[in-house]
Amino acid sequence: MSRRITLTGIKPTGRPHVGNLLGAIRPALAIARDPDLQACYFIADYHALTTVRDPEELADRTRDVAATWIACGLDPERVLLYRQSDIPEVFELAWILACFTPKGWMNKAHAYKAAVQENAERGEEDTDAGIDMGVYTYPVLMAADILLFDTDVVPVGKDQKQHVELARDMAQRINHTYGRDLLVLPEADIRDDTATVPGLDGRKMSKSYDNTIPLFVPEKRLKKLCNKIVTDTSPPEAPKDPDTSSVFSLYRQFATPQEAESMAERYRRGIGWGEAKGALFEAMNRALAEPRTRYEELMADPGQIDALLAEGSRRARERARPVLERVRAGIGIDPAR
Amino acid sequence: MSRRITLTGIKPTGRPHVGNLLGAIRPALAIARDPDLQACYFIADYHALTTVRDPEELADRTRDVAATWIACGLDPERVLLYRQSDIPEVFELAWILACFTPKGWMNKAHAYKAAVQENAERGEEDTDAGIDMGVYTYPVLMAADILLFDTDVVPVGKDQKQHVELARDMAQRINHTYGRDLLVLPEADIRDDTATVPGLDGRKMSKSYDNTIPLFVPEKRLKKLCNKIVTDTSPPEAPKDPDTSSVFSLYRQFATPQEAESMAERYRRGIGWGEAKGALFEAMNRALAEPRTRYEELMADPGQIDALLAEGSRRARERARPVLERVRAGIGIDPAR
Repeated sequence: MSRRITLTGIKPTGRPHVGNLLGAIRPALAIARDPDLQACYFIADYHALTTVRDPEELADRTRDVAATWIACGLDPERVLLYRQSDIPEVFELAWILACFTPKGWMNKAHAYKAAVQENAERGEEDTDAGIDMGVYTYPVLMAADILLFDTDVVPVGKDQKQHVELARDMAQRINHTYGRDLLVLPEADIRDDTATVPGLDGRKMSKSYDNTIPLFVPEKRLKKLCNKIVTDTSPPEAPKDPDTSSVFSLYRQFATPQEAESMAERYRRGIGWGEAKGALFEAMNRALAEPRTRYEELMADPGQIDALLAEGSRRARERARPVLERVRAGIGIDPAR
Repeated sequence: MSRRITLTGIKPTGRPHVGNLLGAIRPALAIARDPDLQACYFIADYHALTTVRDPEELADRTRDVAATWIACGLDPERVLLYRQSDIPEVFELAWILACFTPKGWMNKAHAYKAAVQENAERGEEDTDAGIDMGVYTYPVLMAADILLFDTDVVPVGKDQKQHVELARDMAQRINHTYGRDLLVLPEADIRDDTATVPGLDGRKMSKSYDNTIPLFVPEKRLKKLCNKIVTDTSPPEAPKDPDTSSVFSLYRQFATPQEAESMAERYRRGIGWGEAKGALFEAMNRALAEPRTRYEELMADPGQIDALLAEGSRRARERARPVLERVRAGIGIDPAR
């Protein structure tokens, strides 16, 4: 039996940080290790176009995100890693899907509804003000991303569940119209994304809070950032609760279970914050040193990233073409081009 | 200086009739004869997908419309004749345009507004009921059709003017955003489409009135249809006004100016309707006999139509690719794929 297909989209939204690594990259990489799954990863550069209007920034971010994921362990030979913009079939399928998507479905899409509500709260007379068609129709493009690869399962956080459901609804409507299984119905695999990663100030690590630890800063800078993590002012000898400490919460993610266990014990017995932060830095640096080197190598040689992506895209199109051809033939469009 | 580019979309909406020949095909073919223009014609099969859900019907109509236009004199070697569905670049450009199209623009599109109003008049609570995203977003796809070929001028009827204006607005917005002329601004060439062609019952010839004379019916059937044209019951010797006669109105379109002149004189002196209809049949049959043979030859050999369209599409993509590459490079997407 052929392996089930799983698909993950990566939006190139700026320099990846430790929160991205723990919340998105590591869980996604775990999927790639499942021998029963064929994992596809695509860099959604055309989705980013809805917000990124600086051409150099868009190109840089795309390379950055590819280099980051490869540096963190994504093996472009084992999985499919490709740029959305390299797969023209996705845009054609998006048009086909649009013809079978009631406008009412888009009116209910979370991102659009949120934008409309923001407008209403701001007292805008036109609740569609400032909303481009890219934002309004992107669930259709996302559905095309998914359906073009006969995806069986899409790992998503709760807030992304709707996208998979919409893709499923579109596929169902097309299959029903033509009385044939032209498209595979994808399933959402809801991931528990409650594990929030604390940032420098103790709040969730997020670019919008300006409290992130970028993944691949030089060692010295990483040390400085670890030292900047906000803690209480209790003296070294005071017992500390590891479960409420940002420093420990991060440490645990980079240490072995045994190390975490014994560190927790030291917290409870009393540890100076300086020492605790030093241990965090050591653990983080140990985990990030090799990826950092690999990342720097890749970023110094954009041609290498481009070549890896081009090869991934070539393989991705080999999979996408027969799917689009099947749909084209099914709806009465000459499948051979 | 290179020739200006003009573009005409042909929607495959069923068996062409005499009204289509006189109202659309002949005027469009006249453009192809202008030595200062490079004329592009595309069969908008993917636009038809918004309504045609029978795969065989969609495929047949597409071939039918290609055979009809070629039979009527479109020279696929002099102009560009291609299928929209053969040009994947158009769908990718459509996504790019969508990212720069305020949703408010689509809310004002004629076809969408008409559908909303119909819903309102029918007392529908949801005024978007029954409206698919294909219908809602098709002005974006149409703009991509136009802009992908650096089109300078689009000949349209008054009711289509908005589409060209929207394409122009999108191009302008992109050019403004990136501070560069990434897209050529097209102009609408408004054609006077008041010349209505009368159908069998005297009303405008239209499929929806079921009063058409299909273009390529066999000679016998054409004669029968001509005889079915509704006239008054005045006797042969009674003088007749050529300017108010459906029979004469059609005759004039297929006769030489001299023939029309002398036939008008005969109307005024008195002519039997049977004779007038016989003259109409002779003139129509003379004009349609050769195209009819060519059409039948083509339809008997779908492979020939497909080959002509494939060659046209190949040439069209040669023109489209550099345009899309220019836009991709301009917005920060790797132009080489």
